[in-house]
Amino acid sequence: MDRNQLESLARRLLAGEVSLEEFLDETSCREIADLGDAQVDLDRPRRCGFPEVVFAEGKSVAAMEKIFEALLRNGADVLATRVSAEQAAGLLEKYPAARYNAVGRTFRIPGGGREGEGREGYEGKVTIVGAAVRMIQDVGVAGPHRLTANLPLLAESDAVVVVAGMEGALPSVVGGHVACPVIAVPTSVGYGASFGGVAALLGMLNSCASNVAVVNIDAGFKGGYVAGLIAKNMAKQRRLRDNPTSV
Amino acid sequence: MDRNQLESLARRLLAGEVSLEEFLDETSCREIADLGDAQVDLDRPRRCGFPEVVFAEGKSVAAMEKIFEALLRNGADVLATRVSAEQAAGLLEKYPAARYNAVGRTFRIPGGGREGEGREGYEGKVTIVGAAVRMIQDVGVAGPHRLTANLPLLAESDAVVVVAGMEGALPSVVGGHVACPVIAVPTSVGYGASFGGVAALLGMLNSCASNVAVVNIDAGFKGGYVAGLIAKNMAKQRRLRDNPTSV
Amino acid sequence: MDRNQLESLARRLLAGEVSLEEFLDETSCREIADLGDAQVDLDRPRRCGFPEVVFAEGKSVAAMEKIFEALLRNGADVLATRVSAEQAAGLLEKYPAARYNAVGRTFRIPGGGREGEGREGYEGKVTIVGAAVRMIQDVGVAGPHRLTANLPLLAESDAVVVVAGMEGALPSVVGGHVACPVIAVPTSVGYGASFGGVAALLGMLNSCASNVAVVNIDAGFKGGYVAGLIAKNMAKQRRLRDNPTSV
Amino acid sequence: MDRNQLESLARRLLAGEVSLEEFLDETSCREIADLGDAQVDLDRPRRCGFPEVVFAEGKSVAAMEKIFEALLRNGADVLATRVSAEQAAGLLEKYPAARYNAVGRTFRIPGGGREGEGREGYEGKVTIVGAAVRMIQDVGVAGPHRLTANLPLLAESDAVVVVAGMEGALPSVVGGHVACPVIAVPTSVGYGASFGGVAALLGMLNSCASNVAVVNIDAGFKGGYVAGLIAKNMAKQRRLRDNPTSV
Amino acid sequence: MDRNQLESLARRLLAGEVSLEEFLDETSCREIADLGDAQVDLDRPRRCGFPEVVFAEGKSVAAMEKIFEALLRNGADVLATRVSAEQAAGLLEKYPAARYNAVGRTFRIPGGGREGEGREGYEGKVTIVGAAVRMIQDVGVAGPHRLTANLPLLAESDAVVVVAGMEGALPSVVGGHVACPVIAVPTSVGYGASFGGVAALLGMLNSCASNVAVVNIDAGFKGGYVAGLIAKNMAKQRRLRDNPTSV
Amino acid sequence: MDRNQLESLARRLLAGEVSLEEFLDETSCREIADLGDAQVDLDRPRRCGFPEVVFAEGKSVAAMEKIFEALLRNGADVLATRVSAEQAAGLLEKYPAARYNAVGRTFRIPGGGREGEGREGYEGKVTIVGAAVRMIQDVGVAGPHRLTANLPLLAESDAVVVVAGMEGALPSVVGGHVACPVIAVPTSVGYGASFGGVAALLGMLNSCASNVAVVNIDAGFKGGYVAGLIAKNMAKQRRLRDNPTSV
Amino acid sequence: MDRNQLESLARRLLAGEVSLEEFLDETSCREIADLGDAQVDLDRPRRCGFPEVVFAEGKSVAAMEKIFEALLRNGADVLATRVSAEQAAGLLEKYPAARYNAVGRTFRIPGGGREGEGREGYEGKVTIVGAAVRMIQDVGVAGPHRLTANLPLLAESDAVVVVAGMEGALPSVVGGHVACPVIAVPTSVGYGASFGGVAALLGMLNSCASNVAVVNIDAGFKGGYVAGLIAKNMAKQRRLRDNPTSV
Amino acid sequence: MDRNQLESLARRLLAGEVSLEEFLDETSCREIADLGDAQVDLDRPRRCGFPEVVFAEGKSVAAMEKIFEALLRNGADVLATRVSAEQAAGLLEKYPAARYNAVGRTFRIPGGGREGEGREGYEGKVTIVGAAVRMIQDVGVAGPHRLTANLPLLAESDAVVVVAGMEGALPSVVGGHVACPVIAVPTSVGYGASFGGVAALLGMLNSCASNVAVVNIDAGFKGGYVAGLIAKNMAKQRRLRDNPTSV
Repeated sequence: MDRNQLESLARRLLAGEVSLEEFLDETSCREIADLGDAQVDLDRPRRCGFPEVVFAEGKSVAAMEKIFEALLRNGADVLATRVSAEQAAGLLEKYPAARYNAVGRTFRIPGGGREGEGREGYEGKVTIVGAAVRMIQDVGVAGPHRLTANLPLLAESDAVVVVAGMEGALPSVVGGHVACPVIAVPTSVGYGASFGGVAALLGMLNSCASNVAVVNIDAGFKGGYVAGLIAKNMAKQRRLRDNPTSV
Repeated sequence: MDRNQLESLARRLLAGEVSLEEFLDETSCREIADLGDAQVDLDRPRRCGFPEVVFAEGKSVAAMEKIFEALLRNGADVLATRVSAEQAAGLLEKYPAARYNAVGRTFRIPGGGREGEGREGYEGKVTIVGAAVRMIQDVGVAGPHRLTANLPLLAESDAVVVVAGMEGALPSVVGGHVACPVIAVPTSVGYGASFGGVAALLGMLNSCASNVAVVNIDAGFKGGYVAGLIAKNMAKQRRLRDNPTSV
Repeated sequence: MDRNQLESLARRLLAGEVSLEEFLDETSCREIADLGDAQVDLDRPRRCGFPEVVFAEGKSVAAMEKIFEALLRNGADVLATRVSAEQAAGLLEKYPAARYNAVGRTFRIPGGGREGEGREGYEGKVTIVGAAVRMIQDVGVAGPHRLTANLPLLAESDAVVVVAGMEGALPSVVGGHVACPVIAVPTSVGYGASFGGVAALLGMLNSCASNVAVVNIDAGFKGGYVAGLIAKNMAKQRRLRDNPTSV
Repeated sequence: MDRNQLESLARRLLAGEVSLEEFLDETSCREIADLGDAQVDLDRPRRCGFPEVVFAEGKSVAAMEKIFEALLRNGADVLATRVSAEQAAGLLEKYPAARYNAVGRTFRIPGGGREGEGREGYEGKVTIVGAAVRMIQDVGVAGPHRLTANLPLLAESDAVVVVAGMEGALPSVVGGHVACPVIAVPTSVGYGASFGGVAALLGMLNSCASNVAVVNIDAGFKGGYVAGLIAKNMAKQRRLRDNPTSV
Repeated sequence: MDRNQLESLARRLLAGEVSLEEFLDETSCREIADLGDAQVDLDRPRRCGFPEVVFAEGKSVAAMEKIFEALLRNGADVLATRVSAEQAAGLLEKYPAARYNAVGRTFRIPGGGREGEGREGYEGKVTIVGAAVRMIQDVGVAGPHRLTANLPLLAESDAVVVVAGMEGALPSVVGGHVACPVIAVPTSVGYGASFGGVAALLGMLNSCASNVAVVNIDAGFKGGYVAGLIAKNMAKQRRLRDNPTSV
Repeated sequence: MDRNQLESLARRLLAGEVSLEEFLDETSCREIADLGDAQVDLDRPRRCGFPEVVFAEGKSVAAMEKIFEALLRNGADVLATRVSAEQAAGLLEKYPAARYNAVGRTFRIPGGGREGEGREGYEGKVTIVGAAVRMIQDVGVAGPHRLTANLPLLAESDAVVVVAGMEGALPSVVGGHVACPVIAVPTSVGYGASFGGVAALLGMLNSCASNVAVVNIDAGFKGGYVAGLIAKNMAKQRRLRDNPTSV
Repeated sequence: MDRNQLESLARRLLAGEVSLEEFLDETSCREIADLGDAQVDLDRPRRCGFPEVVFAEGKSVAAMEKIFEALLRNGADVLATRVSAEQAAGLLEKYPAARYNAVGRTFRIPGGGREGEGREGYEGKVTIVGAAVRMIQDVGVAGPHRLTANLPLLAESDAVVVVAGMEGALPSVVGGHVACPVIAVPTSVGYGASFGGVAALLGMLNSCASNVAVVNIDAGFKGGYVAGLIAKNMAKQRRLRDNPTSV
Repeated sequence: MDRNQLESLARRLLAGEVSLEEFLDETSCREIADLGDAQVDLDRPRRCGFPEVVFAEGKSVAAMEKIFEALLRNGADVLATRVSAEQAAGLLEKYPAARYNAVGRTFRIPGGGREGEGREGYEGKVTIVGAAVRMIQDVGVAGPHRLTANLPLLAESDAVVVVAGMEGALPSVVGGHVACPVIAVPTSVGYGASFGGVAALLGMLNSCASNVAVVNIDAGFKGGYVAGLIAKNMAKQRRLRDNPTSV
């Protein structure tokens, strides 16, 4: 908010055209839940479309519970990433209804409320293509006829997430077949000169397909998040098209 | 096309339900203009939404002309990236109506036809935030109140491209204010331990904002391409909403 | 298969000159065994000369069994690489006749059939020279007279695999004595500035001997595979020479 | 001490203007406690403002005790860094009054004497801003309004220590709001292309804020030490101002 | 400014206790000179103690003039870093009174006014020790008796800047002799495995002296800036001591 | 030759069963042309199948002429690699019949004699697939249908050389379609995180296709050499098959 | 041995001027103990001054015993490096008189004979200076007066081994005080940007002292070996001086 | 000199047992020629055996002349390294009798005096083996019989300098044939994954020959210096042996 906007708003406050509460809503800092040693960003769903995600690595169970409580009190969904089995065990005692995904290392507690904010859009069309995890993908590039069989599915996606280790070439191949963004996730699967995913990361950054963007090594959550944002925004437009009075 | 689909189509060909021409259109290799030492992918607009882009680095002017001719014959727009001033000078003699962007090193010749294919959607809402090129961005992170002034513009974007050199922190800051994907473009602006853009690249890959995806160092074209795809697809939905009979 | 070839074949189908089955064999996608979460490439022996090799790292025993079954049903040999002792123990319960090589970490189940495809050529003349594993090789470069004693054996090889850690100089020495390709395998044996095999890898890539090609660090299987391909193809020619009516 | 100074002093010694003791105090090597296999620098408080700090990694408990004793005999505080839990357990048997900080891995024994030397100044105004350890900091950059709330505290600091992992952008943001040095401490918190803190380190080295200096990855002690030196020297000036006869 | 502070201020505005102008001064965005394609941060002297510094690399002379004008109009000093000889030549035509330092590549135009802001403190005691530029420093570490001669000078510094290339060991040596922060500036002087300053940078980051903080390779300006901040703040305290009514 | 072999040969010499000349031919060092400051390896055609190749980078024209003369005197072909335009101009004055390939930077003088040694086999079936040089290859991976059209040619090769820059994925794709070794040549074509060919190199080393071996970045000569060796040896077998009395 | 030398020797053999045994001693390959899967270089003491050293990492106890036996049979000392505690335990059962150094990870069995070969010279004057292991060295560079106290010892050394981790600056300091070679051994002691010893290695390679040569990270054995060679050769000359009829 | 030694010496000074001059010679700082912006270490010949060597890179001709004059005034030889052709041209105007070695980039002015100090020993037996500069070395490793011919020369060396680029394997080969230290000099000759000499450097650091120590990339001067020190010290012992009254 620049000085001019602020001046205009202040004049309207002085003129009684806006209430003090409205004035403060417009100008004050966004809501923060101050927990002493942690401050939770409660404004994020409104601003960014999804509630804050908790990075669990290196946090104690007690510290996480404190954060979770602040989020739940505000009706937000709780999602934590890179949660170890030990952390999950401790958290599940407190939140038995939560779900821990041991492979993805995510921990999720469904929130309670404030419907309409950052919640409606969990649909959309994201296709995930993976490599070097299951056998079919090990040879993804070297056996491209298998990709071919899935082209119709790819063609109607809003965004495609391609997960690949080793040389990380699969996003390039997929990128050449679709008219939507490809979010490439390099993984640390491989050995020797894969350097823990660096080879795949570099391969993806240098992709000759123009529609490939990349996230961090093993950042499956972030890859899905970006693709999900695209799909969610597209789905919102489709809903508007089908039901122009919605939103 | 898998064996079952092919068998079904072949039976319809034998039954006369599809013509040979239709059969071939469905099953044969996509159109390729074989130029001897180069084969131009003419099917790309249909498949990927944009015509093929020519990577000019290391190509002779003669080789590029050959490729351009094939594209123009098919009514496609010509766009070449990483075009040096020398290459551009040579090309402009042949294509005086083309436009060379010396800063972006792009060369563009408006195509002639096949309207309706990969052409309609060059609108959409992409905001580009840059750093370390012009002065305002040099201190983008250290002077965040300047970013604040532009938040309304950012908030209504379909995608944001953030270009930054040095420590590459700007995408994280922008990412915390928007509900759309941020496509981060690291640049080689900097010195010493910026290592030609590696510091910015790593900073962006490790962004704590979940909505940031990254492209190659100095890959401004690719960053714009991915954001453009998102915006184009969104714009298409908006057109459909406003004019449901279009497409 | 380009459009012309396809048109010609389709006309022959319409003319009854080829059967539908023959037509499909020529044009359809290669055989894939779709296992739900894995698709096994059964066409590989015909196309590449060897059946598909399973990369075991990170796969569950159950997932591997599913893949093995698909391969065995088609009469293919099963070979898995980078198999841990734990994985092997689980697999041996199911396949007691299989052989697990604990040093090479390979798991092998002899296939049952389809003789004549990718099977006849497991001979050929490959010599493997190793270093930094057993004592004689530790000083391979520093004690070259030991290499000299083995020159006659090297001279008649179709391909030589040289395995070396530390500075990775042995392939250069061997390369100067033979008239066949040397496939160099860098290993992670070493410490400090060997950087897990990077020193050996770089040494081999920069070999001043022109006949040295390199595979990944610790990629013993791949090194043997490439050399085996060369030897197999040479052996095939020798059989043809000795018995011109074979193949 | 150059030859001229030494000659002058020696002439004064010969002339009886300085005692032998005074002469030796001026010219001899600084005090070293020679412990056989270790020599403890006892002169450091006078020279550097703080007693010597013991780097514990790789030292036996017995070796450390020997060093601690020499320091304590001279009235110095004992501070050891990077002390493992095992080392601490052993040391606490001998020094039950000592304090072990398990998170910071420091071990501290309050010294006994020589007041007035390097002791008075443990006050000063250092603010520590951390990221990627507790939740509030995970999003430090992406949620800058939380930083804003703490600006008054930052503004009156003599030095600020900013601890951050991942992309390490927080020091840049803080640097743009204060008129004192920012000591940036990159941490190894992160994954994938954070490369154990390298991404954060590079981000901080390339900070576009001119008042940011950097220490080693995970070198929290050093970061605090440098900031503490600045604050201590400032505090000394303030005491002098308030009480000009002190020092 | 948090919501409570803002509410309090707004109530005072409504109560007429503060004027609209005062209200805006406290709450609005800091002063920005919007130049179209550049926004100059005019608030920096008040906030950070020094006016904004212009990073010249990659900027046109015209772009810089625009920024310089905005700064000069506000009475700020102009300082640009990494200015090439070509840029300087162009700028000197416009600003003949400016001074270009060809070795340091800085360009400086003395500002005109607003005395009392960020101007008074350009004194303080900073000692600069350099290496690998002039001969005495080439052997700085290997000939430490030369350093010894300068110890008295070092001992009374508020901060020491140590510039060194090659192995970058000099900051460690200096650090062991002083009780103030040492700001280490690695340079790209060297060859081979100095890797453009990386060896010096790593040496400084790993310094066993606890009072060494580091800036980017060849970042002489930043090294001086941090040391200058420390000295300026110390000088301010000394002035207050000598003249308690000042500031 | 070990001591036993040598003893046996020496006894036969003493017994007059072999002449002194024969004894020396068997036991002495291989032929070296000692040129003072260079020693040319004239035995290489017999030992390695091709004459010695001269690495021109950093050599003076005079030094090269000296080496060329020694090779030509012995009837060997002369081939030099990495020859600059300047070097070539100087050499062409002396050897007007030689051919300089400015793109490949090779210099070649047809030798005169010693037919039958390392000369007969310059045929064989090597297919070269290139990428990122000409347009068709820029999109090699992203437009795989173009590769498909060339499968019959690839299928009958003795070896395939695949040249690729950027992400270097093409060898994986080609490797999945052929039953012969693929020699992958990474090139430095690309920008940003291609790091001068490192991305392509890593991609190729990590190829999931087992039949891919790699040579140095931009080592087109070496890639062709290894493939040529394979093809030559295969061609020799075919000649033997067709004309068993040859060789 | 070139052809001329060989011819001359063969003529003397034919002339009966040298015996067959003498002829073979001069010309045959050096002694190798062929152990099947290992060939021990027994000629090394004569050629290189010390017997072969066994690199234990990755070898089984059985494989080492086989090699040890071959060495002991020939009267050589046995020395193995990088021997783990597990390997040592196994070897001590067989060789109870051997000595295992758990810190240095060496295993040594005194040999039995062939006195006069590579044995006499285990004296010489090597000084070892260490850093970052014991406390005195932690501050080796930052507390140089401690080094000063040891200068007389350093001054009379034939060679100095300097072991240092962290920034690896100590060799430079020592190098400036001695007229003999300094063999620098970087260690992996350190954290963060020490990168497992890389910082120390680079520091040492870039030492501004001209008499510093470097060995691998943690290669204490090699550092001592090179220094020992120098000292041994010097000691031999001193013995010759004192007792000219010796050797 | 520790406090005890100093006290003893001071007592002898007071007792008149040593003169003031003698006292100062023993205790004062070593001679330094203070040139204002450079301080020349004139004590180096006595301390280190050779006069100071000037690192020319980045120094102006005027700055070098100032340093040269100080050295020449003290009778020292002048040797400068990494001198460009431009610098040499300027220096030769002033010192026409000096010799510039354009290949080695060294500049040398014979000194005038102080015979007996650091001058007598410029003999000794150093053998230099080079690779990748002249043709014979390009294939040094791949054609080891050429090395064999030079073994007698190597065997009688006091130290061997081995210069090699590319994979840097030659030092290992040479190391296996000699009983003296091998000083390995990696060069930046090569391309692609030689990374400007890094591949050679790593190869040499990881050499399996225990007698190989390494200097910086392209540090030919340092390699020769270390070897020269060894040879000089050996030669001194030989002179003492032959003429026990010398030195």
